[in-house]
Amino acid sequence: MSDIRQLALQCRDAAQQLAQLSTEERSTLLRSMADALEADADGILAANAQDLQAARDKGVGSAMLDRLALNPERLRGVADALREVAALPDPVGEVTRDYARPNGIRVQKVRVPLGVIAMIYEARPNVTADAAALCIKAGNGVILRGGSEAIHSNTTIAASLKRALREAGVADAALTLVEDLRRETMLELLQLNDIIDLAIPRGGEGLIRFVAEHARVPVIKHYKGVCHLYVDDSADLQLAVDLLIDGKTTRPAACNSLETLLVHADIAPRLLPLAAAALRERGVELRGDAASQALLPGITAATEDDYAAEYLDLILAIRIVPDMAAAIAHIQTYTSDHTEVIATGNGAHGEAFVRALRSAVVMVNASSRFSDGGELGLGAEIGISTTRLHSYGPMGLEALTVERFVVRGEGQVRHRPH
Amino acid sequence: MSDIRQLALQCRDAAQQLAQLSTEERSTLLRSMADALEADADGILAANAQDLQAARDKGVGSAMLDRLALNPERLRGVADALREVAALPDPVGEVTRDYARPNGIRVQKVRVPLGVIAMIYEARPNVTADAAALCIKAGNGVILRGGSEAIHSNTTIAASLKRALREAGVADAALTLVEDLRRETMLELLQLNDIIDLAIPRGGEGLIRFVAEHARVPVIKHYKGVCHLYVDDSADLQLAVDLLIDGKTTRPAACNSLETLLVHADIAPRLLPLAAAALRERGVELRGDAASQALLPGITAATEDDYAAEYLDLILAIRIVPDMAAAIAHIQTYTSDHTEVIATGNGAHGEAFVRALRSAVVMVNASSRFSDGGELGLGAEIGISTTRLHSYGPMGLEALTVERFVVRGEGQVRHRPH
Repeated sequence: MSDIRQLALQCRDAAQQLAQLSTEERSTLLRSMADALEADADGILAANAQDLQAARDKGVGSAMLDRLALNPERLRGVADALREVAALPDPVGEVTRDYARPNGIRVQKVRVPLGVIAMIYEARPNVTADAAALCIKAGNGVILRGGSEAIHSNTTIAASLKRALREAGVADAALTLVEDLRRETMLELLQLNDIIDLAIPRGGEGLIRFVAEHARVPVIKHYKGVCHLYVDDSADLQLAVDLLIDGKTTRPAACNSLETLLVHADIAPRLLPLAAAALRERGVELRGDAASQALLPGITAATEDDYAAEYLDLILAIRIVPDMAAAIAHIQTYTSDHTEVIATGNGAHGEAFVRALRSAVVMVNASSRFSDGGELGLGAEIGISTTRLHSYGPMGLEALTVERFVVRGEGQVRHRPH
Repeated sequence: MSDIRQLALQCRDAAQQLAQLSTEERSTLLRSMADALEADADGILAANAQDLQAARDKGVGSAMLDRLALNPERLRGVADALREVAALPDPVGEVTRDYARPNGIRVQKVRVPLGVIAMIYEARPNVTADAAALCIKAGNGVILRGGSEAIHSNTTIAASLKRALREAGVADAALTLVEDLRRETMLELLQLNDIIDLAIPRGGEGLIRFVAEHARVPVIKHYKGVCHLYVDDSADLQLAVDLLIDGKTTRPAACNSLETLLVHADIAPRLLPLAAAALRERGVELRGDAASQALLPGITAATEDDYAAEYLDLILAIRIVPDMAAAIAHIQTYTSDHTEVIATGNGAHGEAFVRALRSAVVMVNASSRFSDGGELGLGAEIGISTTRLHSYGPMGLEALTVERFVVRGEGQVRHRPH
């Protein structure tokens, strides 16, 4: 048996122990994990310094160095995040349906852990603790495969967390860090569909495509967020500009930021000059169709590629549409199934927009930047799904469980014995 | 573009139309589909006669001929099943969560259709109508790829159903029957992960493994059902025997039939002679461990393979266990994650059994034969899942939808503009 298969089997066995813990026992375990991180802070920061030095020696860019870097304050933040997860409501055991059948059997649907979750991620060492905490809170074993840049940080963080597991009487294989970072080992991990219940890749589009293309285990993925704001003719101008500025400029690199503005032709002459002034003040480059170029002289022409682009940058594509149906048709063509927003003063238009679109999150008069696990009240986010299976949109603890059936009777049978 | 890709894209576009129909419009459509089948009965039965003749010429066995055969009564049954699906509650639009956030935005989780579902199945022509009805009821497009034995029957059934779609103003590609039955075309279909949201294979283990191994689209699958009955020392003897007889003998070829009996050592001397008499009377062969052989002289010795087997036949494996923990450990080793049953007079034991096991269906004092969509009150069953993702256990209409987020606000933004 290969090493990685052996590790995965041990994780599965440990996950069965974890699933037997009570809600309170799992919460206590998470708080101990937070304490362990703080107790081991010196060792973790020293290991992180080693990773940072190696990254600097390799000439890694400053954005990547920043993602990799831990300091006492950030580490305290990681520990506090674990305590927050500990305090979240437990999805395990939740009864989502409860009814009796005519023959008297009582049927419940009850949430159980998925089993074993593989997290595949890149440089951020905090993911090691965050993802482990969410998986364990929901009673799952977790196999962590982080990036090579963070290997020393990840190893020491995992060692701390594993100590807390052992002290709680759980086999520490419930949290398994893959230290063999060869590509073929990751490929082998992604083939273990008799052991691993779900893989969640987190990182750039390249990583996600690699995982999705090579996995035989189920994968929940999120390629990109081409989020649209449609401004209806009935919209309040200031409200529309507020949503636009919040959605485009407050964190352009986030997947829930806006990429395309669609404007009803009747409101465009009033909205666009106002919007353009506010956007340009914040350094946003505008690219528009012929009609918006006519209203905003000097802006670049938008191409087909612009409407398909996830800029992740201070660039906005604009199109003027004759009516809401045209806005919906545009979104259906270019959607990444992430988040779409309508600004409207007409309730019926808002509801028609919601009904017409099947993206993971559809909003009426609210910023696309709320399309986030924390903002939507999920408590924490393990990832986001833009595929319509199991979970769709921001994923919290509930997405790490599945509903199964529990039936209680008094000896009912389907056919009386003859 | 390949033909099958073209067909799938047309199905996806038609599915968007379907998703826009109201509950009542989709119900009416299903009733029209039932009427169309009855109106076209002569043509369908003639096509079926052609399939039956070809199968007889190929020397196909009688069980397969029976699965393939339609007659006026069976066809009326198929049409009536469509009317029953029409009458089921609509899962689309169901609001499963509804809450406000501190900033005043209102968040709902609402069920939407999955999109496009590919059904891969074998000889039974009724699946063509049943599966299409369930997918369409839940607002999904459906691509049907049936077996070559039923191709004439399937083609005429699909033509009827498509006429009803057109008459309802929906592009008939919403129901697409794949008539090109080459294996490479099925392989290509299973790669279309940018178009198809879910594949559901229905048939023998060989078909399911083929689909699972070659698919790049998500697959919900069910390999086998090794269902266990554990008889606790506190169980009522007659109740335990009733569950055993119902679970083993009423339809041994069903996946929810029992394969293994685990008996607490303290009740075994009273239970086993009673059970063996009832089972033997119904022609069941018994295979046991040494302890049960001692109580039931003459029975065959059970091997490791017996405990892993899904007999689908009148054979039962027996093991005597010292306590419930040993029964649970046995089940955890051999489970197919389908259905497990405890017969007990002790409520706490029943609850501990439920908690310890994570199979799709766990029952206390009820027959494993209730592990079925109809019996559990789902109204109809599109399939059964033994993988813990999206859906687990018998799958009804709800499993053909996914929950997404709808957010309504009054202009809330995440960061006030500065």
